Amino acid sequence: MDNEGLSFGVLGTGALGGLYGGLLAQAGEQVRFFARSDFEHIQQHGLRVESPLGDFCAEVDVYDSPESMPQVDVAILSWKTTANSVLADILPKVLKPNGIVLVLQNGLEIERDVAEIIGEENVLGGCCFLCSNKIGPGHIHHLDYGTITFGEYAASLVGTISERMKEIEKVFRGANIDMRAIESLPLARWKKLTWNIPFNGLSVVLDANTKEIMTDPETSQLAEDLMSEVRESARVCGFEFEEAHIEKMLDATRKMVPYDSSMSLDYKFKRPIEVESIVGNPLRSAIQAGYRPQKIEMLYHQLCFLDKRNRQV
Amino acid sequence: MDNEGLSFGVLGTGALGGLYGGLLAQAGEQVRFFARSDFEHIQQHGLRVESPLGDFCAEVDVYDSPESMPQVDVAILSWKTTANSVLADILPKVLKPNGIVLVLQNGLEIERDVAEIIGEENVLGGCCFLCSNKIGPGHIHHLDYGTITFGEYAASLVGTISERMKEIEKVFRGANIDMRAIESLPLARWKKLTWNIPFNGLSVVLDANTKEIMTDPETSQLAEDLMSEVRESARVCGFEFEEAHIEKMLDATRKMVPYDSSMSLDYKFKRPIEVESIVGNPLRSAIQAGYRPQKIEMLYHQLCFLDKRNRQV
Repeated sequence: MDNEGLSFGVLGTGALGGLYGGLLAQAGEQVRFFARSDFEHIQQHGLRVESPLGDFCAEVDVYDSPESMPQVDVAILSWKTTANSVLADILPKVLKPNGIVLVLQNGLEIERDVAEIIGEENVLGGCCFLCSNKIGPGHIHHLDYGTITFGEYAASLVGTISERMKEIEKVFRGANIDMRAIESLPLARWKKLTWNIPFNGLSVVLDANTKEIMTDPETSQLAEDLMSEVRESARVCGFEFEEAHIEKMLDATRKMVPYDSSMSLDYKFKRPIEVESIVGNPLRSAIQAGYRPQKIEMLYHQLCFLDKRNRQV
Repeated sequence: MDNEGLSFGVLGTGALGGLYGGLLAQAGEQVRFFARSDFEHIQQHGLRVESPLGDFCAEVDVYDSPESMPQVDVAILSWKTTANSVLADILPKVLKPNGIVLVLQNGLEIERDVAEIIGEENVLGGCCFLCSNKIGPGHIHHLDYGTITFGEYAASLVGTISERMKEIEKVFRGANIDMRAIESLPLARWKKLTWNIPFNGLSVVLDANTKEIMTDPETSQLAEDLMSEVRESARVCGFEFEEAHIEKMLDATRKMVPYDSSMSLDYKFKRPIEVESIVGNPLRSAIQAGYRPQKIEMLYHQLCFLDKRNRQV
């Protein structure tokens, strides 16, 4: 990374990449967007963001092939994990030598795909807490929240807040993004899964939004049971957090605007759902560590079935 | 019960009562049918049954009020447990003094409702293994199977095959019904739940028939996991059966014609589903006995949510 200011590449100009990339571009940072289906629309009309942070429409540098996009210092990986099969082709083309990838995808051990291509020492991972949807080509509707917590991926670097993390954090904060460097990325990922496993999973299986799940006594109990299993799974994997985190998450969800999870939207639009990264990987990690979370396993089996059938039709 | 031949009253002229009652009537037994929505149709057109045992159309004695129906020796309770709230009114009217009730409903501890009204010593319970649907008013389509295993309900009589059981068995067998007197009704109920809990439950939650559930590796694994939990629940409640029963059930289901479970049909037609008798009661029995079947509990929570929402609309 050179010192004249970092260049960023946004891989996946959707609900997440569109918002954060858009905010960085609005703040005057060097941001290049990689887009496929939305490429022409964004080239002609720019990127449109409606957000509690302020609405804007930004002309942006957009590319539809990795070859045409100038190489960047930091690639922000923000498309769905279900699209990761193209990474091996794209990453080496869009990254400068020693460029790094900030993986903002959902789930557990999702950095592994990237690490295998560019080496784990070049990978950062972040958890995004936001309610945001893409509602049209190049058109992002940011509803609520927005914090990113991020950290080093390489096992040897977990526990430290590196210089490059501080540098990136500074740039994001300058763009009005609440970014926070943390020492333990896996702990943050597990804590986020405490929400994602029950609410993404149940929203698909029950075709229900957060409010419906939390209003019903049986399903809010089930959400809490799943959360307890996530916490126990994290614990056996070596990442402990306090029980109060579960109550905090339940409380926040009760107060939330009724929200269709990203998995539920993917399912409705008959796109593949992120069942492996969000449910399968944590389940396998727990089992490997000697604990079998029964309800998470049941949710996983249900989601696998529904996902396959959803894409057959 | 007098010796001049038993009289039977069928409470619920549907897939089950229509078939068994129809077969008894065809064999010349004294059978009275209690029907509500189908009363006029059956009175005018009789009962129509299509069955591998032979198709028939029978003129039958049908009544639309308990007051108009002559009292019987044996009431065959064959409507859904979700309709049991009317039992306290109806049973005393349709039963002769010391008349008995043969409960052919699905689930666990479903005889309790009847026992509270007429005394547990007057209650028999049976498990029906049949694929049968009501496809129109007074019109039954019997697809496959048909065995009834039945026994005494009263705790003091479990373990015996009583004279009245032998008498009833003889009559049913004479009507071409494969009826088998057994010593342990609760064991039979638990063994039947091994099928009913996974396949009724998952068919509703996943909107899938038996074939779809058994063809997919994840959901057939889930069905097996649920079966293992039923077996363990039965065991802690004092009713042990061999693991081979699970393999037998799975095998039979694999070979079965694709079948929409009764719960799935109820759900599709927006009728209440038998979630308490089939899932809630066994779950509570297991928990009371000190074992918490996690997947059955999750299924129960999912079904409660879906049932409530299904009937709101």
